[in-house]
Amino acid sequence: MRLLVVGSVALDSVETPFGAVTDALGGSATYFSVAASLLTGVRVVGVIGDDFPKGDLEKLAPRGIDWSGVVQAKGESFRWKGKYSFDLASRDTLETRLGVFADFKPQIPRAFADTPYVFLGNIHPALQLAVLDQVKDPQLVACDTMNYWISSEKETLLKVLKRVDLLIVNDEEIRQLSGDWNIHRAARWVLSQGPRRVVIKRGEHGAFLAETGKSFYCPAFPMEEVFDPTGAGDSFAGGFLGYVARTGDLSSAGFRRAMVYGSAMGSFAVSSFSVGGFEGVDPAALQTRVRSFKDLTHFDVAEAIG
Amino acid sequence: MRLLVVGSVALDSVETPFGAVTDALGGSATYFSVAASLLTGVRVVGVIGDDFPKGDLEKLAPRGIDWSGVVQAKGESFRWKGKYSFDLASRDTLETRLGVFADFKPQIPRAFADTPYVFLGNIHPALQLAVLDQVKDPQLVACDTMNYWISSEKETLLKVLKRVDLLIVNDEEIRQLSGDWNIHRAARWVLSQGPRRVVIKRGEHGAFLAETGKSFYCPAFPMEEVFDPTGAGDSFAGGFLGYVARTGDLSSAGFRRAMVYGSAMGSFAVSSFSVGGFEGVDPAALQTRVRSFKDLTHFDVAEAIG
Repeated sequence: MRLLVVGSVALDSVETPFGAVTDALGGSATYFSVAASLLTGVRVVGVIGDDFPKGDLEKLAPRGIDWSGVVQAKGESFRWKGKYSFDLASRDTLETRLGVFADFKPQIPRAFADTPYVFLGNIHPALQLAVLDQVKDPQLVACDTMNYWISSEKETLLKVLKRVDLLIVNDEEIRQLSGDWNIHRAARWVLSQGPRRVVIKRGEHGAFLAETGKSFYCPAFPMEEVFDPTGAGDSFAGGFLGYVARTGDLSSAGFRRAMVYGSAMGSFAVSSFSVGGFEGVDPAALQTRVRSFKDLTHFDVAEAIG
Repeated sequence: MRLLVVGSVALDSVETPFGAVTDALGGSATYFSVAASLLTGVRVVGVIGDDFPKGDLEKLAPRGIDWSGVVQAKGESFRWKGKYSFDLASRDTLETRLGVFADFKPQIPRAFADTPYVFLGNIHPALQLAVLDQVKDPQLVACDTMNYWISSEKETLLKVLKRVDLLIVNDEEIRQLSGDWNIHRAARWVLSQGPRRVVIKRGEHGAFLAETGKSFYCPAFPMEEVFDPTGAGDSFAGGFLGYVARTGDLSSAGFRRAMVYGSAMGSFAVSSFSVGGFEGVDPAALQTRVRSFKDLTHFDVAEAIG
């Protein structure tokens, strides 16, 4: 298995204009793994409480996800409760109960230490550093973060940036991190802090990949029905790194393709509650979706004006 | 000259975080024409007051703009005053003085009636219909509108839609017009009302072209410095229709290219106050910008997953 993710495995209660679920499978590592496992084997490190329906994770096992690094601790599982606006453009967090996740100290199993591609999910930057100390010379390390760590642990987060190859964040996060509202200047600032590449996720507006002197833009898939946006960004990251891990292609052209695989996964994620949007998605369906991005974005243009 | 535009010629007073101008050349027909004239000759129909610095328009004449359809009427010119937020993401209209534009009844000069490509700028839908009655079998008619007409003159606007080939609006306008917040469903609804194609402008998030069963997405050009967003949408429309008028290419591939020319023009427009962003832009610079959109969006993908 070529891809390791460290992050949250949670139970989400979500209300959208189209329905509601209670204690559904969620968490960044869960969405990430389900998406990535369409492309490569995934090892997960996380923590769940003794109230967690482990069978729900095991049902996902056939996809090629190794959950053996997810420790079951005494106490309550991480729960998140949120409600989306009528147009899904914004959401209110109604409740966050960290439970056992509050004391999560990721232990990378010895058998996982040589995984070549690593994704540091959104956890305390000190824990992200601790994970980096436990892995052996990975080919590529990517990380996520969130507003809470940017405001409270910026120094530590900057240490993480010095040690990762790729930062994957949303537009609000990169603005807050860089102190610059222009995302293109913000991306350039991040590139000066360590990572060779940065991906900015913009929800329905797509995603932007920046590397020194080059950039790539991939729109979100045009969807007439979006059911639940929860997990879209984590699924994007899973598709992106799943593709990189599968191919080992670290060229600019490879990362562009990874962006499209990520965007395709985001479009599956939002089509149902929890990870239900991935049901029935096989490699052929994935490839069809990926190729439709080409139809959506490509054009021909001559050397001179026609 | 192959392109006719009917719309506003105005004096804008604009404040952005980077500076301010007073009574600068503005208006939808002005931005449209300056952009389009990089690609084709443009005929303008509009009205200005007796206080308008006509010389400022004439300075733009060398680009191939025929201003002879712009009537100078007794009274004050149309003036708009606005102020942008620190991040340019929103703006407040501080003052709108319609002046002579309030009584504008577009008269298409006989010599303009056979222009093959027509853009109905944002004027009263009844006036848009009156323009359509004055032109002879154009190859393509596109129209714009705004929230004010959508709420106050929807019936008349729907009559306009039945007679145009293309609607060019922004995301808020198409949501209001269709009553649907999902822009892809909204686009499908517009296509059921008459136009064969609809373009949705989304500012910094790019533009979307929908036709039955097909869609195309073009991002905004990544800019580290945006100076003044005023006129970006009108410049987009000018680039789009300027390209269509120049080439006469009404194929899907042609409209995709038109989207990119429109987006390129938008990027020039926002780089300075008023129409200053077009200064020094020649066809070669335009083509370089257009080709850079290809670098920004293109990727290769195999038949099967790599």
